[in-house]
Amino acid sequence: MILTLTPNPAIDITYRVAAITLGESHRVEHVTERAGGEGINTAAALTSMGIDCLALAPVGDGTLASFVADLDGRGIPHHLVRAPHPTRRSIALVDDAHEATLFNEAGAPVPAEVWAEVIRQVERLGGSRGVLTVSGSLPAQTPTDLVARITHAAHEAGLRVVLDVSGPVLSSSLAFAPELVKPNRSEAAATLMALTPSGAESRSQTGAAELARLLVEAGAKAAVVSDGAAGLALAAGSVALRARLPQALRGNPTGAGDALTAALAASLDDLPGDHLPDDRGAWAEVLRRGVAWSAAAVLQPVAGPIDPGDVARLLPTVEIEETLS
Amino acid sequence: MILTLTPNPAIDITYRVAAITLGESHRVEHVTERAGGEGINTAAALTSMGIDCLALAPVGDGTLASFVADLDGRGIPHHLVRAPHPTRRSIALVDDAHEATLFNEAGAPVPAEVWAEVIRQVERLGGSRGVLTVSGSLPAQTPTDLVARITHAAHEAGLRVVLDVSGPVLSSSLAFAPELVKPNRSEAAATLMALTPSGAESRSQTGAAELARLLVEAGAKAAVVSDGAAGLALAAGSVALRARLPQALRGNPTGAGDALTAALAASLDDLPGDHLPDDRGAWAEVLRRGVAWSAAAVLQPVAGPIDPGDVARLLPTVEIEETLS
Repeated sequence: MILTLTPNPAIDITYRVAAITLGESHRVEHVTERAGGEGINTAAALTSMGIDCLALAPVGDGTLASFVADLDGRGIPHHLVRAPHPTRRSIALVDDAHEATLFNEAGAPVPAEVWAEVIRQVERLGGSRGVLTVSGSLPAQTPTDLVARITHAAHEAGLRVVLDVSGPVLSSSLAFAPELVKPNRSEAAATLMALTPSGAESRSQTGAAELARLLVEAGAKAAVVSDGAAGLALAAGSVALRARLPQALRGNPTGAGDALTAALAASLDDLPGDHLPDDRGAWAEVLRRGVAWSAAAVLQPVAGPIDPGDVARLLPTVEIEETLS
Repeated sequence: MILTLTPNPAIDITYRVAAITLGESHRVEHVTERAGGEGINTAAALTSMGIDCLALAPVGDGTLASFVADLDGRGIPHHLVRAPHPTRRSIALVDDAHEATLFNEAGAPVPAEVWAEVIRQVERLGGSRGVLTVSGSLPAQTPTDLVARITHAAHEAGLRVVLDVSGPVLSSSLAFAPELVKPNRSEAAATLMALTPSGAESRSQTGAAELARLLVEAGAKAAVVSDGAAGLALAAGSVALRARLPQALRGNPTGAGDALTAALAASLDDLPGDHLPDDRGAWAEVLRRGVAWSAAAVLQPVAGPIDPGDVARLLPTVEIEETLS
């Protein structure tokens, strides 16, 4: 079972108007609203691929009922922990002339007792096998080591851990040996700069394969660094691979990272034994699935679900090569 | 006592960011949120002038607690009628380069039984004397004659009625002889066009004084038509006046109309007897107060409250003249 934790979920609100004019007033006739946040999108991707999962998130009291109704309606299993403050909003303004213009609220602080309950649920729901994913930002004033503590608790409960977090939250977690981390190239560079500030200047030029290797050196058991159209770079033990589509797809990239997290978690959940493999073939299949799911997400109009038909069509097109190091 | 009805209140949300770039993502650190809507602003203006009032509005179940807390915090007396659907949002995006960019949701339909309860509260709270104001838009799918019915019920309960509504909602109410209507010039023109579509072409050129006269001819006991920097035009019985400041003030115009409604309601509440006066002097004082309060609102950073000191300073500067008809 895969548990997807969203520490900072959002009410995703979309306003569609004919044209946006700055400084003017707009009457909005078309409003859509749904439960959002990266871990919820990851659960949506897993659900559409028929994989057993549970979305875990702290949700503000006044938002709980609408989140439950929305997730139930989309068939996404969930366990929401009641929090006292309102859940943040993310507003997408869409008109005919622009890609979505987004306004993401930072998120109100979540009290320590709610985080304690989230950790209890990770321990309880994870069971003795399975994978925990932790995705996205943290609410304002959250202790930086929260994800490190969650990683530790998940390991104690027998779970493998996939982290889609960045900055100090990621760097403080690496010492707890998460099974997989998946920053994009600039997030990976920033994380490594935070660990070794003296190397700050050089990291922005460092390639994805080298960043992945450095993340493993810093503590992660495996690292996948996404690099836009250049695809994914993986480092795990002595394995170093790169995977990509022969050509980039056009579409909506907002859910691609969440679908990649879903694919990586699904692969880790399938891997047998207590230890991650150290052979190229097993990791190549992990990457293949990651590229195909994330490309399938680009073909969707909204972040979250993916089409298994798209995945089946894309899987054999993924190109894998070994990285020379 | 003045009862201010807001049929379509809103949660006024303000996002302040350094710069808005269409098509991009913005992290919002500064969010303010308060109870909004034109009748609520009118109650805020009355409250800041020390005048007894009560804000009446249907408010969605999930929004009630925050509306109550906000209005209590601002010292605005209120009676909120519980409605099943969420209250609409109005989002103001503010950056350094632009006036606020507004996105106003239309508002979810309000069931008939909630309107019936609103009308019961008008009858009960109005008592045998006082003024009812009705301000702003109606939620989606509201019967156009709702305000006409409320006007009738208020009259039965002994209340005078000030309407700050427009379009078919105003035109259908005129037959019920509201004591005062206060559209702006383009709203007045549109309302009169709806009543006599054959005259449609000509109305956009009609002056404010003539529009006020036509609104009285169509059924209102008195009409004040606002005309931007040109001030206010009033028609009431045989009286026809115009009032303005010697020069327009610069500032935030968003609450000016609501403060004008507040001033007009306060004046009507003060007028003795069962009938409106038909003498120039009494109406000149009504207009003088209207111009001063609405100008005081322009000096405020947010819509709602006004400063009695500003009002005292502005009152003697208002210029009144008789309109030749």
